[in-house]
Amino acid sequence: MTPATDDDWFEIAVRVRYAETDGMGFLHHANHAVYLELARTEYFRSRGGDYRAMEESGRFLVVVSLQTKYLKPARYDDLVRVRVRVARLSAAKLEHEYELLRGDERLATARTVLACIDGDGVVQPMPGYVRQPRAADD
Amino acid sequence: MTPATDDDWFEIAVRVRYAETDGMGFLHHANHAVYLELARTEYFRSRGGDYRAMEESGRFLVVVSLQTKYLKPARYDDLVRVRVRVARLSAAKLEHEYELLRGDERLATARTVLACIDGDGVVQPMPGYVRQPRAADD
Amino acid sequence: MTPATDDDWFEIAVRVRYAETDGMGFLHHANHAVYLELARTEYFRSRGGDYRAMEESGRFLVVVSLQTKYLKPARYDDLVRVRVRVARLSAAKLEHEYELLRGDERLATARTVLACIDGDGVVQPMPGYVRQPRAADD
Amino acid sequence: MTPATDDDWFEIAVRVRYAETDGMGFLHHANHAVYLELARTEYFRSRGGDYRAMEESGRFLVVVSLQTKYLKPARYDDLVRVRVRVARLSAAKLEHEYELLRGDERLATARTVLACIDGDGVVQPMPGYVRQPRAADD
Repeated sequence: MTPATDDDWFEIAVRVRYAETDGMGFLHHANHAVYLELARTEYFRSRGGDYRAMEESGRFLVVVSLQTKYLKPARYDDLVRVRVRVARLSAAKLEHEYELLRGDERLATARTVLACIDGDGVVQPMPGYVRQPRAADD
Repeated sequence: MTPATDDDWFEIAVRVRYAETDGMGFLHHANHAVYLELARTEYFRSRGGDYRAMEESGRFLVVVSLQTKYLKPARYDDLVRVRVRVARLSAAKLEHEYELLRGDERLATARTVLACIDGDGVVQPMPGYVRQPRAADD
Repeated sequence: MTPATDDDWFEIAVRVRYAETDGMGFLHHANHAVYLELARTEYFRSRGGDYRAMEESGRFLVVVSLQTKYLKPARYDDLVRVRVRVARLSAAKLEHEYELLRGDERLATARTVLACIDGDGVVQPMPGYVRQPRAADD
Repeated sequence: MTPATDDDWFEIAVRVRYAETDGMGFLHHANHAVYLELARTEYFRSRGGDYRAMEESGRFLVVVSLQTKYLKPARYDDLVRVRVRVARLSAAKLEHEYELLRGDERLATARTVLACIDGDGVVQPMPGYVRQPRAADD
């Protein structure tokens, strides 16, 4: 596996909403998972995927594991850069890593593992259109 | 229609979550609608209803109108009393009114109108088990 | 007061997040208040306002009343147009009206009234920079 | 360090709200962090702590790391048991572990690390009243 470079990252910008802040005036830590999901979805869209259509065809991507390290708080109205890339892809699992930044300052890093299930919750092989450009590496 | 009395109210207590507060340290105003829904659901349950089972049978109650007046802010960790009663019930619509209180202090008042739809979004008559004890008044 | 025209509207687009949908697959109705707030904030920014700076200077805009009519559900991944305009502005209160649309289809209409308070919750005159172009009409 | 037993767990029950579910009808995975926080707060209260008073005195507990493994989905109206215990406590950090259960079925496990900061975001020693009964073990 070649070391990842800056070119691997896909990035979106998300402005922190008032409703997402907490009594400290910070982005509440539960919302980071929502931001990761937004980045993942747009990343998928940018590669020709359509997650809504995927669900309508009876395949769902579910988060089976999430890790987040919070380095600095994001505040109301901050424009947060959320970067995502595929860290690992196998027949059954899709692992992403993420960085949240404000300008060049890193606010958080995260990692998720997704599995694919059908409408009955049974694990399915990852659809071909998810397993794209970057080759599976395990 | 007999004037409503204190006995008409059904009440739950909801503790304000940290994640629900905003940068002012107040319960964010969008969350009041969630509290109203909680009170409505528990009210329905207290009268023998089961909203999950209702949905599984293909009938959904949807909010078609919401009005809220915010009088005083609720704060993190406040135990908010949410009172609900049926204000009006017809074949097609169910109207509730609400009060949010902290002790005896009124924090907000609200009113919602619900309609019943099927899985295709077509409006249905309000199911018999919704139209209970209190008689329809229009 | 001259009748409002299409030119009065300020508009943003908000994509419905997965986390904002509910078991029906619809944008949960509590989230509309968040969308209204986003539109209001961007509208304020477009006119040179900076709500974060305003709060840092000790003035807060709080919602004292909210009315929403839900016409059609928004769904996951829909790009919702949120239009806002000032309906009424006095020394003490700022009233907005809103429309949520998907393409040309109206999903919801809403109205909010805001007041200005200081850090102790005491009502203050609406700051000059809020009371802009459009003249006060009551 | 003595091996943990069932007696170490503090437990609360949280009913899954409609607003917390997503298009799959499951508790959206971002909300687990909110449930963990609720359990942590009530655990703290059960030992005589008062997190709101702690904040008012200028000390804040912030999440610096979160790990969640999602085993099975929780659904709307499920009464989820959230168990928490202290896994590790040092002068600077407080680590909790969690289990989410529906009846005896494990839905998720999680782990958080908290630090204590002052109003300027500077890390502070964990207050004495946080470092309670159970002795520090590192």
